[in-house]
Amino acid sequence: MRLENIAIILVESQIPENIGAVARSMNNMGLRRLILVSPKNCDLSRVVKMATGSSIDIIEEMEIYDDLMKAIGPLQYVVGTTARIGAQRPALTTPRKLATDLVSISRNNLVGILFGPEDRGLSNEHLRYCHTIAAIPAAEFSSLNLAQAVMIFCYEIFLAAKETPLEPTPRLANKFELEGMYKHLKDVLMKIGFIDRQNPEHWMLNIRRFLSRMPLRAREVRIIRGICRQIDWYMEQVQKLKVQGKQE
Amino acid sequence: MRLENIAIILVESQIPENIGAVARSMNNMGLRRLILVSPKNCDLSRVVKMATGSSIDIIEEMEIYDDLMKAIGPLQYVVGTTARIGAQRPALTTPRKLATDLVSISRNNLVGILFGPEDRGLSNEHLRYCHTIAAIPAAEFSSLNLAQAVMIFCYEIFLAAKETPLEPTPRLANKFELEGMYKHLKDVLMKIGFIDRQNPEHWMLNIRRFLSRMPLRAREVRIIRGICRQIDWYMEQVQKLKVQGKQE
Repeated sequence: MRLENIAIILVESQIPENIGAVARSMNNMGLRRLILVSPKNCDLSRVVKMATGSSIDIIEEMEIYDDLMKAIGPLQYVVGTTARIGAQRPALTTPRKLATDLVSISRNNLVGILFGPEDRGLSNEHLRYCHTIAAIPAAEFSSLNLAQAVMIFCYEIFLAAKETPLEPTPRLANKFELEGMYKHLKDVLMKIGFIDRQNPEHWMLNIRRFLSRMPLRAREVRIIRGICRQIDWYMEQVQKLKVQGKQE
Repeated sequence: MRLENIAIILVESQIPENIGAVARSMNNMGLRRLILVSPKNCDLSRVVKMATGSSIDIIEEMEIYDDLMKAIGPLQYVVGTTARIGAQRPALTTPRKLATDLVSISRNNLVGILFGPEDRGLSNEHLRYCHTIAAIPAAEFSSLNLAQAVMIFCYEIFLAAKETPLEPTPRLANKFELEGMYKHLKDVLMKIGFIDRQNPEHWMLNIRRFLSRMPLRAREVRIIRGICRQIDWYMEQVQKLKVQGKQE
């Protein structure tokens, strides 16, 4: 099992005890890498109280960032989690379905699973960075405690890792490569008038959704950027011709 | 879904916050019935802190007993949970396998899942009352937080209930009927010299293990007691003949 490539990422977590309980859950299920992004309260004496036994090792090695992009930049595959389900935040998968994919993807790629703050979860902006969005099936009262939610994902991953025959996944694009690609796409699509200059992010959302339905490989990102460059080149030629035409 | 027949039973729980967190986990997964047996600390102000939202209803309706038999007497099927696995406490099933059975059994029967105190889990004596013993698959550090363990069982039951076509199970024997049967069996087996008078409980353990491999139905318990009565009657006849023989 190579679960060390799968990171649990707590975004703006508020309650220190939850961080400790998350570390224990991870330890129970063989995950090691814990990342905090802008924690509101990280009082270590309260964190440690819940991180019993050898779970303290996970706390000692956890990484803390002040910006989500810095945390997920080096990752090839990012999962968002949500309890709220709606048009703005469609849950695409469940922990059980996701777990099998992640075990395969994480053989050659760094994976992160994002969990939002206790009171309101991940924002739409956070979710925009995610390749897929997972929700835990639940009854009417669907708001799980943060550490409970983390446990269910870790538990499913642990079971999947025990059961899944290991097929490697080719290297996926990391977040830097992906965001570079989206920026390039946005510029080009605005230039050719495919997306509205007034509200380009709104149009890009559809493009992001489409392109994140499958985890993009590094090679595929290079292909898309190659196309963008080609369009750029072509438009420059057209521009030159127009200028020449006017001059003639 | 009829999950109201499945009770979560905390035996000698020590930390009030865990009781609240258990209620929230149950609420997340559609379970309602919480039973405490001899809680060491049930400070409601601390319990309630963790039982957010509508989970408070479960706390208001929870039942408290000072004796395990009183709590499980009316139940037809009792599950023990353990993290420690060894010869003395063989785990027979996992939450996932168990969940499908419980959804079926609980249609016509009251079910209880026992969780032991935080520091040492259920004792061998507690486990003796259980029809089956389940352990959560885990990595090396296998000691889960109490509420986390409850969550995994509730989560698996919720998923199984969503997926399982409902086949009813006939009424199972309740704990009173079962213990009456075991007492009857012990008396009869001692009389016929099948088990040692010095240490009958040790021999009965094998009988209990054998008869609890499948959940016994009420009808089957009646059959076993019928056989016991028949042996009793037969021995009386033999006794009478012996007395007559001596007299002749």
